[in-house]
Amino acid sequence: MPALTNTKSIDCASDPYTWEGLTGWKSYRTLRPFRGMYWDVRRRAPWYWSDIRDGLNYRTFVGTVRIFFINLLPAIAFQLDMTRGTHGYFGINEALFSSALAALVFSTMSCQPLTVVGITGFISLFNYTVYAITEQCGIVELYPQFIAWVSIWAAATHWLTAICNWCDYMRYITDFSSNAFGFYVGVIYMVKGFQEMTALYVESTPEAGLMGAIIAICYFLSIILLESVASTICFTPGIRKFLSDYAYVIATIWWTSLSHFPSHIYDSGILRVPYTPAFYPTIDRRPWLVDFWTLPVKWVFVALPIGILLTLLFYYDHNLSSLTAQAKQFPLKKLAGLHWDFFLLGCTCFIGGIVRIPLPNGLVPQALVYTDSLTEYKDTLHKSKEQDIEPASDKCVHHNRKVVCATLVREQRISHFLMALALIGFMTGPLLDVLHTIPRALFAGVFWAVGWSGLVAMNSTQNLCFLLSERKYADPADPQLGVSKGGILYYVFYQMLGVGFSLGVSFTRAAIGFPVIIISLIPLRWILLPRIFTEHELLVLDAPTADAGVVLASMGGRPTLPEVRMMEEKRSQQDGNGEMGEGSGSGSSSENAQGMRSRDGFKDEGEKELERERSEEQTRLGVPSTLRTGHG
Amino acid sequence: MPALTNTKSIDCASDPYTWEGLTGWKSYRTLRPFRGMYWDVRRRAPWYWSDIRDGLNYRTFVGTVRIFFINLLPAIAFQLDMTRGTHGYFGINEALFSSALAALVFSTMSCQPLTVVGITGFISLFNYTVYAITEQCGIVELYPQFIAWVSIWAAATHWLTAICNWCDYMRYITDFSSNAFGFYVGVIYMVKGFQEMTALYVESTPEAGLMGAIIAICYFLSIILLESVASTICFTPGIRKFLSDYAYVIATIWWTSLSHFPSHIYDSGILRVPYTPAFYPTIDRRPWLVDFWTLPVKWVFVALPIGILLTLLFYYDHNLSSLTAQAKQFPLKKLAGLHWDFFLLGCTCFIGGIVRIPLPNGLVPQALVYTDSLTEYKDTLHKSKEQDIEPASDKCVHHNRKVVCATLVREQRISHFLMALALIGFMTGPLLDVLHTIPRALFAGVFWAVGWSGLVAMNSTQNLCFLLSERKYADPADPQLGVSKGGILYYVFYQMLGVGFSLGVSFTRAAIGFPVIIISLIPLRWILLPRIFTEHELLVLDAPTADAGVVLASMGGRPTLPEVRMMEEKRSQQDGNGEMGEGSGSGSSSENAQGMRSRDGFKDEGEKELERERSEEQTRLGVPSTLRTGHG
Repeated sequence: MPALTNTKSIDCASDPYTWEGLTGWKSYRTLRPFRGMYWDVRRRAPWYWSDIRDGLNYRTFVGTVRIFFINLLPAIAFQLDMTRGTHGYFGINEALFSSALAALVFSTMSCQPLTVVGITGFISLFNYTVYAITEQCGIVELYPQFIAWVSIWAAATHWLTAICNWCDYMRYITDFSSNAFGFYVGVIYMVKGFQEMTALYVESTPEAGLMGAIIAICYFLSIILLESVASTICFTPGIRKFLSDYAYVIATIWWTSLSHFPSHIYDSGILRVPYTPAFYPTIDRRPWLVDFWTLPVKWVFVALPIGILLTLLFYYDHNLSSLTAQAKQFPLKKLAGLHWDFFLLGCTCFIGGIVRIPLPNGLVPQALVYTDSLTEYKDTLHKSKEQDIEPASDKCVHHNRKVVCATLVREQRISHFLMALALIGFMTGPLLDVLHTIPRALFAGVFWAVGWSGLVAMNSTQNLCFLLSERKYADPADPQLGVSKGGILYYVFYQMLGVGFSLGVSFTRAAIGFPVIIISLIPLRWILLPRIFTEHELLVLDAPTADAGVVLASMGGRPTLPEVRMMEEKRSQQDGNGEMGEGSGSGSSSENAQGMRSRDGFKDEGEKELERERSEEQTRLGVPSTLRTGHG
Repeated sequence: MPALTNTKSIDCASDPYTWEGLTGWKSYRTLRPFRGMYWDVRRRAPWYWSDIRDGLNYRTFVGTVRIFFINLLPAIAFQLDMTRGTHGYFGINEALFSSALAALVFSTMSCQPLTVVGITGFISLFNYTVYAITEQCGIVELYPQFIAWVSIWAAATHWLTAICNWCDYMRYITDFSSNAFGFYVGVIYMVKGFQEMTALYVESTPEAGLMGAIIAICYFLSIILLESVASTICFTPGIRKFLSDYAYVIATIWWTSLSHFPSHIYDSGILRVPYTPAFYPTIDRRPWLVDFWTLPVKWVFVALPIGILLTLLFYYDHNLSSLTAQAKQFPLKKLAGLHWDFFLLGCTCFIGGIVRIPLPNGLVPQALVYTDSLTEYKDTLHKSKEQDIEPASDKCVHHNRKVVCATLVREQRISHFLMALALIGFMTGPLLDVLHTIPRALFAGVFWAVGWSGLVAMNSTQNLCFLLSERKYADPADPQLGVSKGGILYYVFYQMLGVGFSLGVSFTRAAIGFPVIIISLIPLRWILLPRIFTEHELLVLDAPTADAGVVLASMGGRPTLPEVRMMEEKRSQQDGNGEMGEGSGSGSSSENAQGMRSRDGFKDEGEKELERERSEEQTRLGVPSTLRTGHG
């Protein structure tokens, strides 16, 4: 295994965990339990020592500080939301406990220490929707027991999923659904920001509410500004990196300090994070353990479908977080293990359920940020010359350009573990007092900042921006030019359909069912889209979300995309007929066929080779995520 | 004269109004009164009919709407400030009357209808500083008569200046002082924005104050966003132009409407522009005419030096506004007339003084915007190819780029005249009611937007940004690379010294003396700077503000810059000695000398030719203002 460390890109095809070439009962994933988990551990175990050793560098510190802030702040933000929605059943201490538990378990025992597990908006949405349902059913006093059983069922189905190797199916997820999901999450975050802001207005005086709104707006703008410094050529590389690495820290300290400014600002009486006694559950000093065994059997079974829905949500959300944290744009060397981690997630669900804390799962928008903060980037100077073609000119203009390259990711467990310790630290009295100094309004800003950075990264947003811009000024190398405006619009339309429906149900009792909508985008992509779009169009517009070799190894290798299979079939038919044929009759389709023919040289080497080539082409065509350029 | 219409750049050297080659008493400007005014009128009169005819197009409408908003809104904003500072001596009606009077006079009678005259921050500063002085002298009840006499003296000195052709000296103003002045104006605007915001907080409830602050921030951000659309490739050229042309209109209508939104926003009770009776002076329904003849003679003479200070301010401020409105970046065809216009300004000072309205003069930050809105721009597609040199690569990357070219300026009087009519319209009852619907907080946003757009355009800001950025990523064609960082810093330092002193006195009783500080930068530039910097450095860092042929014609032609004269002298000395010499001994100086030698071919054609060449070189080196590029 360590031989792989030196290869530039990890090749999942050589991994022993594969289902290809298997026949009979051996090819059924469900019939061979624990196979994925076994290989996950075997694959990752050799790296364990290096996960600790590699933690001894500056990036670990940056990673710890950054992830601590962007894990803790939204967790508290969602907690405030959840407290409102469940009449105080969940509080700050529960949020800290949950985050700390997850961080401890996943930093020490997971196969993917880069995946950060914490409190998401969905568990908040989920908890208060279930609360509303129990209220409607008149069993609101049984809510703790009921939600405990939901969690127990969820834990059981998590374990089942992990044991039966079902996490393999994550490899079929493409940007079509994952970016629609990301877009939906971004919108939810933005909306939550406004909800938090208006809640403050209602819960305190209008003066305090408006002062809070100003702080929230300024906080949001500061984060955007500080993070954008990295892509400029201002200051020195060190200062640029410092400002963007610690954007949340700087903004949080600055605006919290300012909110304590004497006179008008302090006197406005803005609300702050509530005080809670250290280590105790937030309300009524109950014991941590819930007496879940007292729930009537009838309700235990009502909890089952809800538990399954929760598993469905976590299956998608948590694994997507893992994929994002280990995306292809990062030069990762250590292999992933989705099955084992999902089993662990089942364990935290179980523990979380019986002590009644919000269940933690993988954070999606934060995943990218955390791995990014552990990545060593290098600014290099690229010189180029530019010559006008139209209007023609002999004069050459020279450019200096800053090109940022990701050279190395500090893959380790230390920063994750340190974050866990910091979270436990914040459960103690003195640090809870520190939390209390933060104005609640700041969390509206946190929602906006996290939501905004998620939204702009989604392909839906980028496609919409492309549609809004004048095509003639687009970069000639832009692959989107290969697709008609209508085609892009059509693709985005289907995504927005999913987003729209999900948003629609989010604000109703049916909210817990929203994972079904997002997941239904996957078959839509696999069955309907290849029939609407040509292979080339899908190559430009869509890509498998699980694109890095390190994660594909844990999922049994790279799947064949349906449009590729369809083209293959068509081609072999044509080869059989010995003639060109009309294809689907459209010009772009025959152009595609030609594109395919030019690849014929590789055909003997089998389908696998073709897939690899396709993946390379995608890298070339796709947004070069590892290269962030700033014009000099 | 009309033959000039077809030449690409107006040549001021052929203008009959010149002082070159004159000797004896004829070369003294003061001894030949009315010469400048006579030639101004003769030069401009032939264009009068075309000034009306050229107004029959869409740009006139855009210009009218845009200048109306950015003239009226700051005027009201300053008025609110002035009302506070003079205990109500000046009100909305005075502001409207003053703006309307100036617009009527200057749109119909001026030589430079592009110069928009209105209420500036300085007249506000001036009026309330004089008020404070009269308060201190115990003659506050004589304030109207005193300020009337100040205005009368100012009018007299205006006339004297115009008659004696002293406006010619404006040609010695370089960006060194004019950009320091612009920077100072920008800072004052930003500060006024904050003052307006805090004033609202104090004058109304904290709730209303904070709601106002949110509106101000959002208004400012909307303007910035809308105006930036023009440089993007979003939407179509028509929509882009629409959004940026009407940025103030859209933002004002939007945020005013939102401030009337029922429930929390409306109920917060934000202050709005005060109601006033139509056509009457704001307070005590006094007659418009001030009984200035009742002022004791002693105070009449005290008013004299203050009047001269006012003339000094207007001399700089008004003429700078004319130069900005007719800057080189605009392809102007019609010639200017500074002397005549300054005489007219004396007339408005006189009228304004005796009816006690704030005295109007040329608006500086708005000048650029107005001419810009009358300019026809054309977006063209430029194609280029780019090749990496370091690291070397054979691959060519193709770029599409949007290049915006100014093709034509609709130079006419109609939009200016229509603005005058609109201002008069707003003095009537129903439209005063419309004004009353605007929340006062919006004016804080107006201050920020106008101040911000002024600040970013100044060379001080651009130099500071350059100093903050990493030099190695700078564009190799950037002329600033030819000057050391220390050199740039030193240049900016002197400018900031002027700005700092001006700001320092602005908040004291000595505020009325600040024009002296700004004007003292001019001799500093002409005497000290050529001894500190090399000719090349000054060529990069500094340029005459009066750079367009159309305005230089009215000032007796282009002056020889002192560093050029010094180099010339040095060169002729060297030529006389027949040897190279050591120059000032520094490497850059000898490099300069070589640069000069390469121009020797032109020497026979005289100094004028050299100057013209220098001006061309400046155009090449300077920021290409007519070309605003957006990357495709």
